[in-house]
Amino acid sequence: MKKDFKPYYAVIFTSIRTDGDNGYAKMANLMETLAKKQKGYIRIDSARDKVGITVSYWKTLDSISNWKQQSDHLIAQQLGIKKWYEWYNVRICKVEREYEFQQQ
Amino acid sequence: MKKDFKPYYAVIFTSIRTDGDNGYAKMANLMETLAKKQKGYIRIDSARDKVGITVSYWKTLDSISNWKQQSDHLIAQQLGIKKWYEWYNVRICKVEREYEFQQQ
Repeated sequence: MKKDFKPYYAVIFTSIRTDGDNGYAKMANLMETLAKKQKGYIRIDSARDKVGITVSYWKTLDSISNWKQQSDHLIAQQLGIKKWYEWYNVRICKVEREYEFQQQ
Repeated sequence: MKKDFKPYYAVIFTSIRTDGDNGYAKMANLMETLAKKQKGYIRIDSARDKVGITVSYWKTLDSISNWKQQSDHLIAQQLGIKKWYEWYNVRICKVEREYEFQQQ
């Protein structure tokens, strides 16, 4: 934990996909590109096996709320519900501390 | 968001693996089994592509701290630093709200 640690926010998006791509990969890439341009964006990590986990990190709750309401993202959310996801869960979290390891 | 939502905690473990298994898969399975037996454990989700993301959920900060100090887990952490991870980051988060979607 850094001495100057300042809390920030994480959105944990956990999902199970429907079968087939149905335009998902293209939209997922676009959403990542757009998220990175949003104010307050810090970082995004994604991985998928049986479940997919995408964690995006944000400076404030407002920046998360703005991203949720961004117009292209709203369309993606609608398509997500209609076509791409069997199930998903979104958790809004406050990152209270962290530590890191780097192999030398 | 449920009306009776009670904050709980998430540990976001993001990592880049070294090459080769070197006993990793076996230990990862064991750690998941042991975590599930810990007091305060709620849930765990894992996925790996280029990065691996494991998010475990806990009722209290104490349950996270107890799991970090659990003896087998301490050994796994040491092996992780020596053999399995090129890089990792651990974030301790408070889950402040959540919502879920389930295809009908």
